Amino acid sequence: MASSRKVSQSTVGRLSLYLRLLSEVQREGRLTLSSGELARRCGTTAAQVRKDLSFFGTFGKRGLGYAVPELIEALRSILGLERRWKVALVGAGKIGSALLGYQDFRRQGFIIGAVFDSDPAKVGERRHDVVVRPDAELERVLEEEGIDIVIVAVPAEVAQVVVDRVVSAGVRAILNFAPTKLDVPAEVTLKSVNMAVELESLSYALASSGKRPRRPAVSRG
Amino acid sequence: MASSRKVSQSTVGRLSLYLRLLSEVQREGRLTLSSGELARRCGTTAAQVRKDLSFFGTFGKRGLGYAVPELIEALRSILGLERRWKVALVGAGKIGSALLGYQDFRRQGFIIGAVFDSDPAKVGERRHDVVVRPDAELERVLEEEGIDIVIVAVPAEVAQVVVDRVVSAGVRAILNFAPTKLDVPAEVTLKSVNMAVELESLSYALASSGKRPRRPAVSRG
Repeated sequence: MASSRKVSQSTVGRLSLYLRLLSEVQREGRLTLSSGELARRCGTTAAQVRKDLSFFGTFGKRGLGYAVPELIEALRSILGLERRWKVALVGAGKIGSALLGYQDFRRQGFIIGAVFDSDPAKVGERRHDVVVRPDAELERVLEEEGIDIVIVAVPAEVAQVVVDRVVSAGVRAILNFAPTKLDVPAEVTLKSVNMAVELESLSYALASSGKRPRRPAVSRG
Repeated sequence: MASSRKVSQSTVGRLSLYLRLLSEVQREGRLTLSSGELARRCGTTAAQVRKDLSFFGTFGKRGLGYAVPELIEALRSILGLERRWKVALVGAGKIGSALLGYQDFRRQGFIIGAVFDSDPAKVGERRHDVVVRPDAELERVLEEEGIDIVIVAVPAEVAQVVVDRVVSAGVRAILNFAPTKLDVPAEVTLKSVNMAVELESLSYALASSGKRPRRPAVSRG
């Protein structure tokens, strides 16, 4: 397997898209796919597809394209999807609870086995078959259960404190939904999903580029 | 205001973070902030902060830093947050319903006023005070209500069809949660949030870089 140092985050993101597209193609009953068609359906170029895959070995035959089942298997292995990952969620609010119900995570091998919240009213409640635990048990449970990945879905102002505690418990991969910038040591991988920032990039585009709505703006009352 | 052509998506994303950080600082009761401290708290450099803001005018005074309330007001204006935006949601599943309950959207001026689903069992149900409408009414309601932004939270295999219908109804800004690549005309701004891809980038990092869990992997049974 390639060293992760050479492989960009963009390449890894595209591998995920290739895997999704190949799985669709497999459901359609097809056994081979050209790099050109894979590229077209993922919005990139055939050269980019070949370069992304070249980090990890030799795939496909000239003139025949990729064998769909083999490439799916290879991508699942590269992306670490051939095993189950133990996931914990900190923050049992709206977003956190929705993530718990997101069936795709489980299908992909990400099993949310522990949920924490600092609100005593939520502790003891069930969220999609997982009982909410008190915040105070965080480090102990992360270590005892050997949690691999922690999803942080807490308010922005407490997110850094939560992340520091998660890192101190030995977790090396964090998915953050709090709309704030977080610091982690170099050995920890942190990814952030910020829905408010995405929405603001849309309002920026509408406000700045003449993509005007068809009706007058409603003033903030 | 700057032309949107000169301003990168990364700059716009950082403006959102600056705005969040400045709002925190304002809640702490502070009236000025240096570009250095703003940069440090957002994980970037003072030069980057100054460059990002220079697209939109002259802010701050040498030696005094930025006036917090003025910069907040300017950023809100740049990001199109001084008005309300009419938002519709297509797909009243788990993720869609969670988004409806996300108070931050409303606070930022993004008002979800219409929800659609293709499942007759969901039509007529209330989701956070909004009644789910049938899929068939999509184009008519988008046009009649003058919807600015559509959030797409449908399964991947129907997402392109939904997006084509939304575009045909004149909507120019789309936030997509379906884990697939979507095509839109150049005049439409599309942003995607893909939680599965983010999780897979974490499993890739764990699987490839020796960031091993502290316990043996659980094999897929």
